[in-house]
Amino acid sequence: MKKAKNRERILVASVELFNTSGVVAVTTNHIADHLAISPGNLYFHFRNKEEIIRELFESMVAETYVAWQPNKETGEYASPLELIERSFETFWNYRFFHREMYHLRRKDPALARKWKSHLNKSVRMLQAHYAYWVKTGTMRKVQDPKEMQMIADLVLITSSSFLQFFESPDKPATRKTLRDGMNHLLRLLLPYHQNPAPELLERLRA
Amino acid sequence: MKKAKNRERILVASVELFNTSGVVAVTTNHIADHLAISPGNLYFHFRNKEEIIRELFESMVAETYVAWQPNKETGEYASPLELIERSFETFWNYRFFHREMYHLRRKDPALARKWKSHLNKSVRMLQAHYAYWVKTGTMRKVQDPKEMQMIADLVLITSSSFLQFFESPDKPATRKTLRDGMNHLLRLLLPYHQNPAPELLERLRA
Repeated sequence: MKKAKNRERILVASVELFNTSGVVAVTTNHIADHLAISPGNLYFHFRNKEEIIRELFESMVAETYVAWQPNKETGEYASPLELIERSFETFWNYRFFHREMYHLRRKDPALARKWKSHLNKSVRMLQAHYAYWVKTGTMRKVQDPKEMQMIADLVLITSSSFLQFFESPDKPATRKTLRDGMNHLLRLLLPYHQNPAPELLERLRA
Repeated sequence: MKKAKNRERILVASVELFNTSGVVAVTTNHIADHLAISPGNLYFHFRNKEEIIRELFESMVAETYVAWQPNKETGEYASPLELIERSFETFWNYRFFHREMYHLRRKDPALARKWKSHLNKSVRMLQAHYAYWVKTGTMRKVQDPKEMQMIADLVLITSSSFLQFFESPDKPATRKTLRDGMNHLLRLLLPYHQNPAPELLERLRA
């Protein structure tokens, strides 16, 4: 029981330290120190930092999919605004991934494979949302599959990269940075709306 | 004379090694080895890797501004398609910056300051282009300054980040990756065109 608890505490402390100090600067010794446990205790649960990172990636992915499920009772999907708000909550909790994924993937091929498979699944789930938005008249139907693919790519690039861009060592990301990122994504999608929801337009004007 | 030549050779070899292997993996010793010169010879020209990187950043910035100048005789600015093609040439030559800027800035506050000032100057030069495009009927006038800022940010995020995203250790960037990135940027700007040029539309359909 105690052991299971420590495992969980190691994961929680790791996310916190990675988010604030960056993955490169944080060692397993820092994590153990932070929790006042021995390095041996940490190694009992995780062989190395990569193993912690991979497990955190799994958690992020699982939380993302839960946020993207359609309503169980009605089968309805979230609106673009709701989808982005839900996704960015998870995004914020695991923001170190979005800042450092390129380096982390370079270092760990196993993580690179997980990332790739997550991307593929994300694209399929976003396609399901989009099909629903076209059916319900929220968005216009894009005829050319090439155009469709490009818009999907732009959404992924923008949402995965804006934090690196607006953040710097002297200006850490805040909830305001996150909200700006969400609005950028909403703005990117605006030209493809059939009937932009009034709350969406208000949000972009605010 | 010989010394000036070595200085230039060190810069050229550094760009090449940074582009192919990533900045973190390349040390000043690797660069000296690659050129078959002594580390002492390299240190005569540059105190450390950071100094080389800062000088390369200066070169990239200078080349970018040359590419963005209006035609000296007619005062005309490039079209969106031309501007993107010119910019991406420089982009490709210094692609390591676009992959690793977040880390490099974190490590070197002097580079972070240079980067910030480059961003500000870039925004001003892009605004001059946009004003010209509105005047000549290429693009529609965006009324809300907030919307304008958001579109500018999206252009910067997309163009600075797509390489990290489409590239991985097992799949290095190619000219094709670059062309895809250019097309993504053109697609992002398409809804803001008043009269999309036929060659632009053809390019996006190809």
